[in-house]
Amino acid sequence: MIEQSSPLQVALAYHRAWTGHDLDRAMEYIADDVVQEAPGGWVEGAAAYRESLAHFVEILERADLWAAFGDDTTAVVVYDTKTTLVESGPGAECVTVRDGKIVHSRLIFDRLPFAQTSAG
Amino acid sequence: MIEQSSPLQVALAYHRAWTGHDLDRAMEYIADDVVQEAPGGWVEGAAAYRESLAHFVEILERADLWAAFGDDTTAVVVYDTKTTLVESGPGAECVTVRDGKIVHSRLIFDRLPFAQTSAG
Repeated sequence: MIEQSSPLQVALAYHRAWTGHDLDRAMEYIADDVVQEAPGGWVEGAAAYRESLAHFVEILERADLWAAFGDDTTAVVVYDTKTTLVESGPGAECVTVRDGKIVHSRLIFDRLPFAQTSAG
Repeated sequence: MIEQSSPLQVALAYHRAWTGHDLDRAMEYIADDVVQEAPGGWVEGAAAYRESLAHFVEILERADLWAAFGDDTTAVVVYDTKTTLVESGPGAECVTVRDGKIVHSRLIFDRLPFAQTSAG
């Protein structure tokens, strides 16, 4: 029997990868048919997910993990981000994990300061 | 020895109270010197906290709990809200609990749809 990583382990490994600017490694934890409920709408499929993540990783300067919890199916990761656009942009991700990969993600963050920056 | 409620129990009781429009009961779980890091800035003290919460509860139509986890000091609650202004406004709260009350809270939600509504 192969031991399966827990949803929390998967979520944290994913988190470490993308906050470390390692997109290839981050995508190893994302299912091909992933669905992300993001503030701007749904992101469907790994290709669209990667594109969306790449945009954010490009401007990411650092991330600080605030909290991470999980059970047999779900994990929640809460963190702050510092980007070239916004000094503090906290985020929360509530993910469903199946066979070691994130199949569903609910991403919560405040778009307003980012919108104000692009408008400013 | 009096058994102390866990941070998760406190966070959930607080969540049930305010989503049930019971402000008085909700405030029983908030410490007098609470500090909330909200998207719009810091909210300091129970009076300011109550005022801020009251504004939101006033427009709240329903809330759905998505996930809730905790340990000995901290809890995270993730949920969706339906308000008179925005059809779906997900939120995440990462709270620190001491002596059965929330002393620190990090609130994450997307202000953009609310800002667009007030502007529209």
